[in-house]
Amino acid sequence: MKIGFIGLGNMGAPMALNLLKAGHQLSVFDLSEAAVASLVEAGAERADSPQAIAGGGAELIVTMLPAAPHVKSVYLGDEGLIACSRPDVMLIDCSTIDPYSAREVAAAAASHGNPMLDAPVSGGTGGAAAGTLTFMVGGSAEHFQQAQPVLAAMGKNIVHCGDSGNGQVAKVANNMLLGISMIGVSEAMALGVSLGMDPKTLAGIINTSSGRCWSADTYNPFPGVMDNVPASRGYSGGFGSDLMLKDLGLATEAAKLARQPVLLGALAQQIYQGFSLQGNGGLDFSAIIKQYTRES
Amino acid sequence: MKIGFIGLGNMGAPMALNLLKAGHQLSVFDLSEAAVASLVEAGAERADSPQAIAGGGAELIVTMLPAAPHVKSVYLGDEGLIACSRPDVMLIDCSTIDPYSAREVAAAAASHGNPMLDAPVSGGTGGAAAGTLTFMVGGSAEHFQQAQPVLAAMGKNIVHCGDSGNGQVAKVANNMLLGISMIGVSEAMALGVSLGMDPKTLAGIINTSSGRCWSADTYNPFPGVMDNVPASRGYSGGFGSDLMLKDLGLATEAAKLARQPVLLGALAQQIYQGFSLQGNGGLDFSAIIKQYTRES
Amino acid sequence: MKIGFIGLGNMGAPMALNLLKAGHQLSVFDLSEAAVASLVEAGAERADSPQAIAGGGAELIVTMLPAAPHVKSVYLGDEGLIACSRPDVMLIDCSTIDPYSAREVAAAAASHGNPMLDAPVSGGTGGAAAGTLTFMVGGSAEHFQQAQPVLAAMGKNIVHCGDSGNGQVAKVANNMLLGISMIGVSEAMALGVSLGMDPKTLAGIINTSSGRCWSADTYNPFPGVMDNVPASRGYSGGFGSDLMLKDLGLATEAAKLARQPVLLGALAQQIYQGFSLQGNGGLDFSAIIKQYTRES
Amino acid sequence: MKIGFIGLGNMGAPMALNLLKAGHQLSVFDLSEAAVASLVEAGAERADSPQAIAGGGAELIVTMLPAAPHVKSVYLGDEGLIACSRPDVMLIDCSTIDPYSAREVAAAAASHGNPMLDAPVSGGTGGAAAGTLTFMVGGSAEHFQQAQPVLAAMGKNIVHCGDSGNGQVAKVANNMLLGISMIGVSEAMALGVSLGMDPKTLAGIINTSSGRCWSADTYNPFPGVMDNVPASRGYSGGFGSDLMLKDLGLATEAAKLARQPVLLGALAQQIYQGFSLQGNGGLDFSAIIKQYTRES
Repeated sequence: MKIGFIGLGNMGAPMALNLLKAGHQLSVFDLSEAAVASLVEAGAERADSPQAIAGGGAELIVTMLPAAPHVKSVYLGDEGLIACSRPDVMLIDCSTIDPYSAREVAAAAASHGNPMLDAPVSGGTGGAAAGTLTFMVGGSAEHFQQAQPVLAAMGKNIVHCGDSGNGQVAKVANNMLLGISMIGVSEAMALGVSLGMDPKTLAGIINTSSGRCWSADTYNPFPGVMDNVPASRGYSGGFGSDLMLKDLGLATEAAKLARQPVLLGALAQQIYQGFSLQGNGGLDFSAIIKQYTRES
Repeated sequence: MKIGFIGLGNMGAPMALNLLKAGHQLSVFDLSEAAVASLVEAGAERADSPQAIAGGGAELIVTMLPAAPHVKSVYLGDEGLIACSRPDVMLIDCSTIDPYSAREVAAAAASHGNPMLDAPVSGGTGGAAAGTLTFMVGGSAEHFQQAQPVLAAMGKNIVHCGDSGNGQVAKVANNMLLGISMIGVSEAMALGVSLGMDPKTLAGIINTSSGRCWSADTYNPFPGVMDNVPASRGYSGGFGSDLMLKDLGLATEAAKLARQPVLLGALAQQIYQGFSLQGNGGLDFSAIIKQYTRES
Repeated sequence: MKIGFIGLGNMGAPMALNLLKAGHQLSVFDLSEAAVASLVEAGAERADSPQAIAGGGAELIVTMLPAAPHVKSVYLGDEGLIACSRPDVMLIDCSTIDPYSAREVAAAAASHGNPMLDAPVSGGTGGAAAGTLTFMVGGSAEHFQQAQPVLAAMGKNIVHCGDSGNGQVAKVANNMLLGISMIGVSEAMALGVSLGMDPKTLAGIINTSSGRCWSADTYNPFPGVMDNVPASRGYSGGFGSDLMLKDLGLATEAAKLARQPVLLGALAQQIYQGFSLQGNGGLDFSAIIKQYTRES
Repeated sequence: MKIGFIGLGNMGAPMALNLLKAGHQLSVFDLSEAAVASLVEAGAERADSPQAIAGGGAELIVTMLPAAPHVKSVYLGDEGLIACSRPDVMLIDCSTIDPYSAREVAAAAASHGNPMLDAPVSGGTGGAAAGTLTFMVGGSAEHFQQAQPVLAAMGKNIVHCGDSGNGQVAKVANNMLLGISMIGVSEAMALGVSLGMDPKTLAGIINTSSGRCWSADTYNPFPGVMDNVPASRGYSGGFGSDLMLKDLGLATEAAKLARQPVLLGALAQQIYQGFSLQGNGGLDFSAIIKQYTRES
């Protein structure tokens, strides 16, 4: 299949490589020449602009961009991807953006005759490289069916979440809960240990009780409780605090537009913002437990 | 074994019954005559006071009381259970109280020569009746070993949490996290649904993603997502909101004494307090999602 | 002076009337024909579009619009007010919007040669009618000097806050603090009264102590403490809860862009959002105390 | 008048000195021998115990103690001040404690025939030395009248707050609001400055607008905005963060017992607890703004 790919950053580059490996023919674009060169070396064709990709015969175009303004700027307008694409070229945006923006872009695509899916991912750069990402996909069931083989070349778990924008809804709802849980686990672990408990014993009890959650049993933030998690290697690697901060910002923004209160979600965002202000935005998001422990 | 049992409320009565069923000889006390009569009918012996139990030859005494002031009043002082007990009678307090009070009572017991365990439970009245409670036990490893057969008559999961008070620490830490998680799930589910997602689809995604937690996959608060949970029967039964409020109060009180911040924990307590002020304290604690949804 | 006025809502209409009263020649535009007709009856000239105002010889144009998207849509683009205005026509936007949008529009004006001020107001519809508004003005000192006589026809307190956008900064910072203070006073009054104090006595003490603030001494939310405030007439009139919610949303949005934490500000926003969800958005913002008191 | 004084700490010692200066005859007790010696040098009589003061003919006894457990231990029990005092000796407790404990002690005094007042102060060590404290007094109007001349020797503003415990209610309600306001001002000032405003200009606008409050116009936390406040001398002196933390703890504890939600109050407590955990408890409470500013 002839596929265009726009956005070759930490996530986009390995995703594009997996499409190449699956035998697809790829034309790629990124503002970074180095990123493009690396893909070209792997067998992709260079495109000089998003418009060139749209005009170059791609049957399907994937985008992976930093935030909603980039997505709108690439897709919309007289020079945008939608205007320059042949109708019926399928458009798949894998960026994580707010659901309202995703729906605005999808509506523009629909009125131009282009099937479109929002398909944000989880799984991090590791999952992107290994081709084990989870895709949360919004759009019609028919378009979801059509896109599944392509997405399956990049991920393992491809979930249809409902109509346009619902991929983004699933992602912001899940990640808001994740941010709340991680802070909750941090408070519970730090409290229990300061009251005299052994951290491994406490984690063991929580993990078999009603406090059980992914942040405690798979990604515990207390140093030394689990091997092979960021907490056991100085909070390097993993999912950065500033990325969690971005997702919490998307959640509270979506909640504002939906006129929906999110008390813990908003407080979680502010706690991560305070952590970032102190210069910790580059640490894994489980490092938030440092806000609750005395430095030794 | 000759066992004394003090406190025959919703939890204590079925626990005492399970000790009888296991073949132990029981003498019981409660301020409610009806509660005592019911146990006596089942084969227990009536005692007229805690002192009578202590003086009546019990080898082990179990207490199940509402709060720390009751525990202190029963155990401490010249007329207290400790002063009136033969040294080496084992004392097991199953009440949920703050760790500091638990340690104060355990220290008094130790100086009188009595082995003592704090052993708060989880599992609710259903678990108490079925004998499937979880016991979180604080005290020495030796005393834990001695008490295990007795506790096993009332519960399924008997966990040693470390020294005196640590049973209470485990319980307040776990339940604080549970309260945070339940509100977090409520916010995430209500947000996702208000943004257009189907609640079962959203729960399915969360339950296989990083937002996964007991409050979402075992006790989901959104009506209709799961069968056989309080959310699907008008939030009746289960673990009452005012009991969650009590446990969050114990957690923030313990955090204050430990000089430990708990931002989400404290906010969770206040959210449940506001819910209780509106007259909802008797509903199951998953009903907190009503704070986030429009009444239809 | 020949002045254009765009946006004749609850605030804009009385502001425009005051400009007429001060002897200025006015051309006006609004999407509502009724709003325009009412001003025309008072002596203004009708314009058929913002472009007509820009092209009609106005020396100065005032806008009073609901939110940032309206402001951008009116000012920017090929058909926008800036593109259609003679260079050196002064532009004054009195809308309350986020500082970043205000600066974006001011920069566009500057590059077209138009002096521009952001001048959000406080004082409500009463102050707009009486001509006693406070204007918080961002822009150069020279432009501030030039605009002052015009603003003085609509307000009493005209404050220069610094460069472009700083009028909006002052407003969002002040109003975020106001929202926090009003909830703080509500919590303190409700707590004190539930603990047995007379509300007037408590207010008297707070107002002469370190808790003193505008929300307590000028606009007390507890019913019966002060005359002539919304709390003493069922929370009608005044500054609506949904307007406070909008301003708190602007504050947290600006904080997000500035990467600045605002824990109490974000929680205040969510508390007002919950209040609005329950159908109370139309009540005066001091009605938030209802979240803290038992209905009698 | 023959007065007993128990508790000669940072506040108690200068208060006792002012009673001496006013011509009263004083017998004093403190656990610290140095504190007693200093008062004896100034003309007071040494007492060896609280009981000695009660038995020594004092017509009125003032206590100034750190927390509720000390107050209960001094007043209650067979050896307590109440049991050892002649009926009709007036007892005045100036400690800051929770209203429930104050009422418990006052009830014990009443049943022994002793008039009692709770009379916590504000004004700090400076006000204690200068005799300009504010006394918030709970108890009967008659007893308040009788005590007023004695309190007037130590303070300037003597306010009757209603029945027993209401002095404490007024203090916890006011100080909870103060903690909220100080954090609110810190968030608003830090946000405004990070968005580009001059701090003095912003404070000037807030102080003449609806955000006006004591924390902004009398004790502004932003360095350089006001002279002669802790913010302009490295946050030394003033009212320590750990004292604010104690008062917020009293407020949330009282709220828990009154079953009253205090969302911002509880969050303020946790923010100060986090600040204290980082080692800042000894700084003035306006230093909380450091949580919101980048260290230069």
